[in-house]
Amino acid sequence: MEEDIHTNSSVPRIAVLVSGRGSNLEALIHAVKTQQLRAEIALVISSKSSARALDIAKAAGIPCEIVSPAQYPSRKEEGLKIVELLQTCGAQLAVTAGYSRIFDPCVIEAFRLKIINIHPSLLPAFAGSMAPGPQKRALESGVKISGCTTHFITEDTDAGPIIAQRAVPVMNDDTVETLADRILEAEHQLLPESVQMALDGRVTVEGNKTIVTSERSVYAGS
Amino acid sequence: MEEDIHTNSSVPRIAVLVSGRGSNLEALIHAVKTQQLRAEIALVISSKSSARALDIAKAAGIPCEIVSPAQYPSRKEEGLKIVELLQTCGAQLAVTAGYSRIFDPCVIEAFRLKIINIHPSLLPAFAGSMAPGPQKRALESGVKISGCTTHFITEDTDAGPIIAQRAVPVMNDDTVETLADRILEAEHQLLPESVQMALDGRVTVEGNKTIVTSERSVYAGS
Repeated sequence: MEEDIHTNSSVPRIAVLVSGRGSNLEALIHAVKTQQLRAEIALVISSKSSARALDIAKAAGIPCEIVSPAQYPSRKEEGLKIVELLQTCGAQLAVTAGYSRIFDPCVIEAFRLKIINIHPSLLPAFAGSMAPGPQKRALESGVKISGCTTHFITEDTDAGPIIAQRAVPVMNDDTVETLADRILEAEHQLLPESVQMALDGRVTVEGNKTIVTSERSVYAGS
Repeated sequence: MEEDIHTNSSVPRIAVLVSGRGSNLEALIHAVKTQQLRAEIALVISSKSSARALDIAKAAGIPCEIVSPAQYPSRKEEGLKIVELLQTCGAQLAVTAGYSRIFDPCVIEAFRLKIINIHPSLLPAFAGSMAPGPQKRALESGVKISGCTTHFITEDTDAGPIIAQRAVPVMNDDTVETLADRILEAEHQLLPESVQMALDGRVTVEGNKTIVTSERSVYAGS
């Protein structure tokens, strides 16, 4: 029954943008393989040629492209290349999963409410990726609950409409690593779920908020 | 076995500061009555003579004092009166529960890390009580998870060391009222628990963070 994930044309196509180790990409691939996510990952775009995420994509037989800022004279040119790649691969939706670049507005415009980001905090707390990072900032602030957030990307960094959030406890003896790992585990569940909800048409944006209807709702898929 | 709560001298004394309807005061009184909170509420101080919280206190036989800003030439005088009342009643700990005044620094100094506040959000998100209030700001921001936070009061409003937090979901059809009610239900559990933890000596402050040891920890009560 299982088909090679990049040749299954009966399901919607998505693209994933990465810069790092690709653990969320791995979670998406796993969700596709186990049919928790009914999608085809048609393309992985990396901003770094050395990203481990590329190895993960290649091992899964997913086409990869590198769009690194150094290759382009401006952020706009870089953005136009990304738009071209996303359109060419037929992606209905793009996912930024540990992608370290801020998009040029042309990308956000071309894929308005079609790009999902995951952020390792309960936004609006610890928005932004500035040093020392959201997880360390959470730890240093002394919060007892942190978590992760999926949201649509808009012009306002980390402030687009929230799709879903998951809370995790912060423990007395947490280090940045143990807290980041606990949040990451939640991310690996939340991201595929959020992508599926968006693909199902269950996420309606009203202003800067979303209404998410449950899978079993009579309104599902409407 | 049950004694009148204001004549039980075998347990630590606390004072509660209020300005409103007193639902968290009610939760504290209930927790004392059911012995979930091993404390005596020795005094209720209200900043408003019309606060419904005063009726709740009187019905429970708790001594009440009104310290309203209009009675004092300055915030400092008002603060000195509060310090005097807290000291006279023998309170080990004070709790602000829907108290709408910002303390003069003299109160914070006299009761350093001895005043617990409860805030209806997962701080640092939606800190402050500015209009339209933390619950409405949460709702308008589109978060999917909110909650409440107990923390020690310091000179930085809503930014003192966090004792505990509880998360609650935000629903699609929430109004400010339904969300505020859901958060309030969590507050009514979190506040007595937090006060008990502090009275037990289980909350250690390190910088702007707390280490909270569990009831069964070998370090409990140390």
